[in-house]
Amino acid sequence: MKRTITHLADGRELIYFDRRDDADRSAIDRRPLDPPPPASELRYDPLTEEWIAVAGHRQTRTFMPPADECPLCPSSGTRASEIPAHDYDVVVFENRFPSFSRNFGTYAEVGGLSEVRPGVGRCEVVCFTSDHSSSFAMLSDAQVELVMDAWADRTAELSAIEGVEQVFCFENRGEEIGITLTHPHGQIYAYPYVTPRTRTQLGAASRHAARHAGRNLFADVLAAERAAGTRVVAANELWTAFVPAAARWPFEVHIYPHRQAPDLAALSEEERAAFAPLYTSVLRAFDGLFGVIMPYVSAWHQAPVREGRDLGYLHLELFSIRRAPGKLKYLAGSESAMGAFVNDVPPEEAARMLRSQVDH
Amino acid sequence: MKRTITHLADGRELIYFDRRDDADRSAIDRRPLDPPPPASELRYDPLTEEWIAVAGHRQTRTFMPPADECPLCPSSGTRASEIPAHDYDVVVFENRFPSFSRNFGTYAEVGGLSEVRPGVGRCEVVCFTSDHSSSFAMLSDAQVELVMDAWADRTAELSAIEGVEQVFCFENRGEEIGITLTHPHGQIYAYPYVTPRTRTQLGAASRHAARHAGRNLFADVLAAERAAGTRVVAANELWTAFVPAAARWPFEVHIYPHRQAPDLAALSEEERAAFAPLYTSVLRAFDGLFGVIMPYVSAWHQAPVREGRDLGYLHLELFSIRRAPGKLKYLAGSESAMGAFVNDVPPEEAARMLRSQVDH
Repeated sequence: MKRTITHLADGRELIYFDRRDDADRSAIDRRPLDPPPPASELRYDPLTEEWIAVAGHRQTRTFMPPADECPLCPSSGTRASEIPAHDYDVVVFENRFPSFSRNFGTYAEVGGLSEVRPGVGRCEVVCFTSDHSSSFAMLSDAQVELVMDAWADRTAELSAIEGVEQVFCFENRGEEIGITLTHPHGQIYAYPYVTPRTRTQLGAASRHAARHAGRNLFADVLAAERAAGTRVVAANELWTAFVPAAARWPFEVHIYPHRQAPDLAALSEEERAAFAPLYTSVLRAFDGLFGVIMPYVSAWHQAPVREGRDLGYLHLELFSIRRAPGKLKYLAGSESAMGAFVNDVPPEEAARMLRSQVDH
Repeated sequence: MKRTITHLADGRELIYFDRRDDADRSAIDRRPLDPPPPASELRYDPLTEEWIAVAGHRQTRTFMPPADECPLCPSSGTRASEIPAHDYDVVVFENRFPSFSRNFGTYAEVGGLSEVRPGVGRCEVVCFTSDHSSSFAMLSDAQVELVMDAWADRTAELSAIEGVEQVFCFENRGEEIGITLTHPHGQIYAYPYVTPRTRTQLGAASRHAARHAGRNLFADVLAAERAAGTRVVAANELWTAFVPAAARWPFEVHIYPHRQAPDLAALSEEERAAFAPLYTSVLRAFDGLFGVIMPYVSAWHQAPVREGRDLGYLHLELFSIRRAPGKLKYLAGSESAMGAFVNDVPPEEAARMLRSQVDH
């Protein structure tokens, strides 16, 4: 794998990840770009003790451009995209409309028992393939491994940025989930705080360890799900994919490595290789469920940078909001206002449906 | 106000709230209804220490019927709806497809470090008006007060059910938020647990009280927002509506009474009367923002039944997912998977836009 760091016309970093060592990465971005917007501001919510990012500049971000203006396709002789080269394997670059960045100024007090601080961090875009009409489910195993190399590289690099507390690699897929570009891509958020859900999971893991002689909560969940078996969707020697017993979403699959690792950078080459075919088979099972493209969020849960490295346990949480061919699960009053989830699809039934697609 | 309790053909309770004491509520439901479905089961999520309701029967719930088959309109000579009477002011009845109920059986162990228990509780539907094409924003003050009387009555009644820990009155409005019936209506969930968001708010309130000589967190937030003033949208002598300094949603308004009350049942008659014109003016401001119907969630935060009665502080949290005329805020990776919110509309800007509509 060859890694080449370049810069776009407005100073943002762009990194090529190539399978071949002789890829020519000398193309230069000559677009007349405005300077990057300032970082968002973080506001402290006194009612929840959480930080909310306010990023007014993101209102103007690119929204569903026509395919021939896709900013994630390679540049051509006549059109300059975000990627200067005429082809690429996997490419990562700083988001033009970031929620977090290091380009911040000063922020005024806002009152209301809130505090304000700059949204230090970094947001990156990961192009999974140069093929505009492909999808992650359709990638070759070698291509998935290259994406994993990129994720691991970025996790290590972003973890080293001062002020970054957690690195989150994820993919939003489908218009129903709110994507604004259809080209197969994911994102990476390097947060200046430990996110609320990770904070909650680490708290649960800490209490579990205290009650059970230091045992790892996630390892125990994995063992219990493998023992129950009824919700396992797919497995190989190094990974298991299962619908969790208390799934929140109509179709939700968690994928765990069999060995505790804090983050993607800590996976072995064998683990990365074994993940690829398992994951794409689960994604294809999602799309096979109803014969329509499944909108999904695919979220890598990594341990924070500076805490919980042993309590945490790298795993992927994949879920769809589609509950039936013409119906979506919406987060309305109970979920959005109270955080109380009601799931209309029994987890064992979801697992059975997904298994029949994987075996297909 | 006259309250009349009746029962539907399948045994569910229906309660009329009438302004006139002579309303005839003798109509009988003669529909051939199936018995109510069993209660959902609650599953414990070991990763978050939260309970998830699994309600498979809700997959078949009524979904966007044509207007002449609306189950929330009064019955007519030729068609029987959920409401036997030929007219009503406000009516409340047990949901036919409840997430929680008292009609439960036994549940098998599911493994996966999860526990299972019955989803004890109750779910009710509140019809705000018999006028199918109206909306809460269009209700008269007297009608809003009758709705508040119904909410207060139901809060007291449902709080007395064994096993109920929290009562949540809310309205989901708009297809974009996932409503399955367009008739103006809300819902009430009587939960068998304290919801995650309320648990979080009570934790914050408890720590605030410990740090500040027993002061109430919500009262202090209200005072600070009134002092800052920049985010106040509307106010009268007994209530203030403001955009919180750390708003999560593009358009979010919190409405607080000036006096601490644990729940709707504890409001005085004057407070109920003063809420009505303030709230509907804010709702009309929402609809005026972009000249299109605003999808929203309107959520009454009440203190739990058995704890936090002094720490809590009744208030309404209203928010929309619409961030621009053709654009919605989706809860994608950062929000849904990590609980980390990014808001594209600065709260002061949202308040300014809403204020200009209220003054209009």
